[in-house]
Amino acid sequence: MKINVGVLGATGSVGQRFIQLLAEHPMFDLTVLAASERSAGKKYSEATYWHQSEPIPENVRDMIIKPTDPNDESFEDVDIVFSALPSDLAKKVELEFAKNGKLVFSNASAYRMEGDVPLIVPEVNHHHFKVLNIQRENRKWDGAIITNPNCSTICAVITLKPIMDSFGIDLVNITTMQAVSGAGYNGVSSMAILDNVIPYIKNEEEKMQTESLKILGDYEDNEFKNANFKIGVSCNRVPVIDGHTESIFVKTKIEVEPEEIIKVMDNFDPLKEYNLPTYAKPIVIRYEEDRPQPRLDRNTGDGMSIVVGRVRKDPIFTVKYTALEHNTIRGAAGASVINAELFVKKYL
Amino acid sequence: MKINVGVLGATGSVGQRFIQLLAEHPMFDLTVLAASERSAGKKYSEATYWHQSEPIPENVRDMIIKPTDPNDESFEDVDIVFSALPSDLAKKVELEFAKNGKLVFSNASAYRMEGDVPLIVPEVNHHHFKVLNIQRENRKWDGAIITNPNCSTICAVITLKPIMDSFGIDLVNITTMQAVSGAGYNGVSSMAILDNVIPYIKNEEEKMQTESLKILGDYEDNEFKNANFKIGVSCNRVPVIDGHTESIFVKTKIEVEPEEIIKVMDNFDPLKEYNLPTYAKPIVIRYEEDRPQPRLDRNTGDGMSIVVGRVRKDPIFTVKYTALEHNTIRGAAGASVINAELFVKKYL
Amino acid sequence: MKINVGVLGATGSVGQRFIQLLAEHPMFDLTVLAASERSAGKKYSEATYWHQSEPIPENVRDMIIKPTDPNDESFEDVDIVFSALPSDLAKKVELEFAKNGKLVFSNASAYRMEGDVPLIVPEVNHHHFKVLNIQRENRKWDGAIITNPNCSTICAVITLKPIMDSFGIDLVNITTMQAVSGAGYNGVSSMAILDNVIPYIKNEEEKMQTESLKILGDYEDNEFKNANFKIGVSCNRVPVIDGHTESIFVKTKIEVEPEEIIKVMDNFDPLKEYNLPTYAKPIVIRYEEDRPQPRLDRNTGDGMSIVVGRVRKDPIFTVKYTALEHNTIRGAAGASVINAELFVKKYL
Amino acid sequence: MKINVGVLGATGSVGQRFIQLLAEHPMFDLTVLAASERSAGKKYSEATYWHQSEPIPENVRDMIIKPTDPNDESFEDVDIVFSALPSDLAKKVELEFAKNGKLVFSNASAYRMEGDVPLIVPEVNHHHFKVLNIQRENRKWDGAIITNPNCSTICAVITLKPIMDSFGIDLVNITTMQAVSGAGYNGVSSMAILDNVIPYIKNEEEKMQTESLKILGDYEDNEFKNANFKIGVSCNRVPVIDGHTESIFVKTKIEVEPEEIIKVMDNFDPLKEYNLPTYAKPIVIRYEEDRPQPRLDRNTGDGMSIVVGRVRKDPIFTVKYTALEHNTIRGAAGASVINAELFVKKYL
Repeated sequence: MKINVGVLGATGSVGQRFIQLLAEHPMFDLTVLAASERSAGKKYSEATYWHQSEPIPENVRDMIIKPTDPNDESFEDVDIVFSALPSDLAKKVELEFAKNGKLVFSNASAYRMEGDVPLIVPEVNHHHFKVLNIQRENRKWDGAIITNPNCSTICAVITLKPIMDSFGIDLVNITTMQAVSGAGYNGVSSMAILDNVIPYIKNEEEKMQTESLKILGDYEDNEFKNANFKIGVSCNRVPVIDGHTESIFVKTKIEVEPEEIIKVMDNFDPLKEYNLPTYAKPIVIRYEEDRPQPRLDRNTGDGMSIVVGRVRKDPIFTVKYTALEHNTIRGAAGASVINAELFVKKYL
Repeated sequence: MKINVGVLGATGSVGQRFIQLLAEHPMFDLTVLAASERSAGKKYSEATYWHQSEPIPENVRDMIIKPTDPNDESFEDVDIVFSALPSDLAKKVELEFAKNGKLVFSNASAYRMEGDVPLIVPEVNHHHFKVLNIQRENRKWDGAIITNPNCSTICAVITLKPIMDSFGIDLVNITTMQAVSGAGYNGVSSMAILDNVIPYIKNEEEKMQTESLKILGDYEDNEFKNANFKIGVSCNRVPVIDGHTESIFVKTKIEVEPEEIIKVMDNFDPLKEYNLPTYAKPIVIRYEEDRPQPRLDRNTGDGMSIVVGRVRKDPIFTVKYTALEHNTIRGAAGASVINAELFVKKYL
Repeated sequence: MKINVGVLGATGSVGQRFIQLLAEHPMFDLTVLAASERSAGKKYSEATYWHQSEPIPENVRDMIIKPTDPNDESFEDVDIVFSALPSDLAKKVELEFAKNGKLVFSNASAYRMEGDVPLIVPEVNHHHFKVLNIQRENRKWDGAIITNPNCSTICAVITLKPIMDSFGIDLVNITTMQAVSGAGYNGVSSMAILDNVIPYIKNEEEKMQTESLKILGDYEDNEFKNANFKIGVSCNRVPVIDGHTESIFVKTKIEVEPEEIIKVMDNFDPLKEYNLPTYAKPIVIRYEEDRPQPRLDRNTGDGMSIVVGRVRKDPIFTVKYTALEHNTIRGAAGASVINAELFVKKYL
Repeated sequence: MKINVGVLGATGSVGQRFIQLLAEHPMFDLTVLAASERSAGKKYSEATYWHQSEPIPENVRDMIIKPTDPNDESFEDVDIVFSALPSDLAKKVELEFAKNGKLVFSNASAYRMEGDVPLIVPEVNHHHFKVLNIQRENRKWDGAIITNPNCSTICAVITLKPIMDSFGIDLVNITTMQAVSGAGYNGVSSMAILDNVIPYIKNEEEKMQTESLKILGDYEDNEFKNANFKIGVSCNRVPVIDGHTESIFVKTKIEVEPEEIIKVMDNFDPLKEYNLPTYAKPIVIRYEEDRPQPRLDRNTGDGMSIVVGRVRKDPIFTVKYTALEHNTIRGAAGASVINAELFVKKYL
């Protein structure tokens, strides 16, 4: 028996990725696509500027887009909605869906840092799901809002988790080189980025610095406790379609050699037992001197693996390495979908 | 009275930049262009695939290319040669020119780290020229080999110098995003870099980590003493034609606010008095939230200024900022030329 | 005595180019910058996202932006306005300025094809200015609307004019590869064009096919007569910042060799006598096998020359060649400015 | 029973595509990978800079590279070799393999235009295989050299074939916008093509103009007769990784509407009956106003379909349209493989 699911913001960049992941999903039946007033009532293929390199899944082409309204009858039999809404809209709409009893798996930033909202990367902190008891009590609803982090945060925390567990972490320094798709289809104009780097992404450094500490922190006595290390970040946009590259420097509590870091990363595989459909090995290590590279490696694990390379010593930090993430799969739609998969299998 | 100068490796990428800077230079008369056997004897315009956006200077078009040989009669009246040779060739050839009494201003890495060779960024350490006494004594020649650092190093040390002088430096962490021109015209294939980032540049991190400490260090008792801070670097290639961007994090000895860092950078102007033809304000501060950007800012100060922006606090380091350098002007040909200008004005 | 001029749409991409050309113009004094309500009242440097590689001209930085209203007192002493307005807005606003007695030199498409509006490329058809008598009579105003063609049309007609004059033209076939700047700063998203070609530009083929025939046609008995050849066009967008490249095939009435075509193009210099400040040699011939190229050649003649290369035989047409134009200078702002220069010198 | 096959030039760009197509092929067993002396004896994964976005097929990683020599024992049981050799080397080597009794399916240009060598696009002219009788007689060998055309030619002739068959063709005019992969991994430097178009590809126009007429021509009385239309071409390189885009203009003998052209293209499916493993619908029509685009459409039919769009009227020609081809699959390795598949099924 599959669970009926819907996608909010189905016509945008992340919405399209949700559709690719959900169109033939073994646990979920994609029954509702919702978008703005302007699109509602139209066929999906007519309302959307589809810009993926694979065509629109056949069973989705002719689906009629619904309004983004939990009271619309199309949502009646839907248990889970995936939200690819922009943050300001998400703030209002996700609340309505949760009140209406839906499980909202959201890629938006609106609720990520709230004290009663889980911010989940399932390989890292799925025990944070427990906060939902508090959330439901506080907010007096049967639904739930479950968030995943910013794309760049996910890439970082997946690689930090096995290091922290084995050796402890004191300091983390990251400089990102992020793909244009992270800003949405019209987010970065070609005149802005061709032959260029933009050393600024609005709010991105703040998100990475706060979200990481929540995710890698504990949940005790009904409260989130931040992880106990310092993290500083510098974010940049580069002329790459998909794939965020991060130069990461880590100072561990226990001094270790790069080889040991590689080993714990390579062995990191905490969700294996659940057989989640969207799951891939969380960290794939590359040993060549010039990998990972976004164009060549972003599709590793169907876009769900973080690819790590150039693990080496640093004069200041214990280790430095390069991590790569497919930002619109592992870093966005895939992040919400795998959250839902684990939640259904383990916490429902 | 102008000084006659020659360019070694005149047909390559950096050689072309030398020609642009020297063709109408007020102190130097560009009288010899030397290149490989294959090119020698041909007109410059015929032997060169000129790929600059300005045409070949008129007075250079028809110059006949000479062999790279200090004994060729064309070098008889030449006092200074600028070397744009690849490092392996430079190792052999620059020696011959120095033995022959020439002042060799070299952009190659071959001799940079030798104990009797000055590695100069004139705004930072021109007192290192004093080592030439030792060099001439050691090597028994009248000429000299004077080097400038790797492009990425120059960008970093110019911004670090005023910080070090005012507040001291404990730690420096840098992640670079470097332009393809840094690898020479055929250095990076388009298939390698379109829609991509390459997280590796051969030997670049080592160069930045060692050269910086020599340049920012002292010269005492006829010896170079490394600067006393730690520096860790991660280097990346991005799809940008010209302009290296660096995310720089600095921990100072004295705690200061970003505003004070900005102030000392902005006031940094140590060579003003010399009226060097190729001189521009060494550091230009940008206050917008998204600058500097290579395509928009690389030509600041005719490509000789380092452009700094986003100076801000960091959770680990005292300050972080983005620095941009035109890598084939300030970071290569212009670096050698300004070294020669200052040397002639002050040390000859 | 300079003439006071204003720029409408001063904050956009073409507006910025107007400012670069007019800030220190020997015939014109740039006294008014007008833009939307949102910008009016602000300093130019604050209201504009300036994205040129040269900084905002000093004398323009602090100018206060005015509303786009001919009755605003700022326009009182202005004789000429340059319009960089989008076409729909131009339709309404340019009319108001002309009624108000202003000479409107417009880069917009709104009025180009009207029977009483001159569509001028001064090297090609400045005798069309004569239609202004009819325009003023028809429209009962003292001002004037004078248009220049679409960027791609200008490139084509300048190269066709000397061929037509010497050998006649039967057929013209063109495929364009156009830069993203032609669509305005936000016109083409990076996700749309990185690693891509878009084989479509809205209305562009129609504009080229109709405008060319008007410009290369006659003006007789107070009427425009279209040129008497056929022209078919296919337009494409490519990942280039500035510089439209066109593959042009021409069948002449008299059979000729490519060398003769080169000769008449190279000798084409019809406005030499007027000493127009923005004038450059209209056609610069390149003889290398792989030129012109947009990144290397777009600034030829300060962006005002069309660069032509690869003039060669074709199995169907008499000749084929590649033409390159700096689309936001020669193809937009520079086109309006040189129209105004010639008009003032010869027709005022 | 599978046929043993080998790949010559297995480490290069096209060689890698051959491996992707052959590693798990239902008719062929990939038993030999041959490359230069330098690589021979090494594991494939060690000798190759693999730059595809999918990893090296598992069964190929550890294969030992063999010398490019038909007498090497590794070729003993091999019946078919696919050649991805550069043209000068192909000239010599392919001959040796054919003499040795091998069927050489070659992507090189060396023998394409010889009077006894078939130049095959199987959807278009597989009856040309008949010339092999003459070839074997002439050259006194049991093997064969069978070529496929240049990448750009294939794209054109597949779209022209159904038009020619239904309406006849008088004139063809093509301007290409070709991907960098067409020149091989190191063929186009990034400094040459970033933010640029290169309006020249060595010998490409000549190849398209001659190869097309041979392929679309007849084979009668043991001789090739060129097709009886005129074709003129202009070739350009653009910053695209994979996917050649062509603006094609066709004048038919019988005047027809674009709709009829679309219909015959869409119905074109001449090899359906053979169930070739690498076969896909030869022409896929797109009806959107801005398709095909290389980044979005190049993988249509696993890279084997030509995608056609914007079929419309032209003032000079009967019709114009845009065609897109994955140049290293349909235009290179896939072209040789599908030739071999049909040959084995029908002509062996």
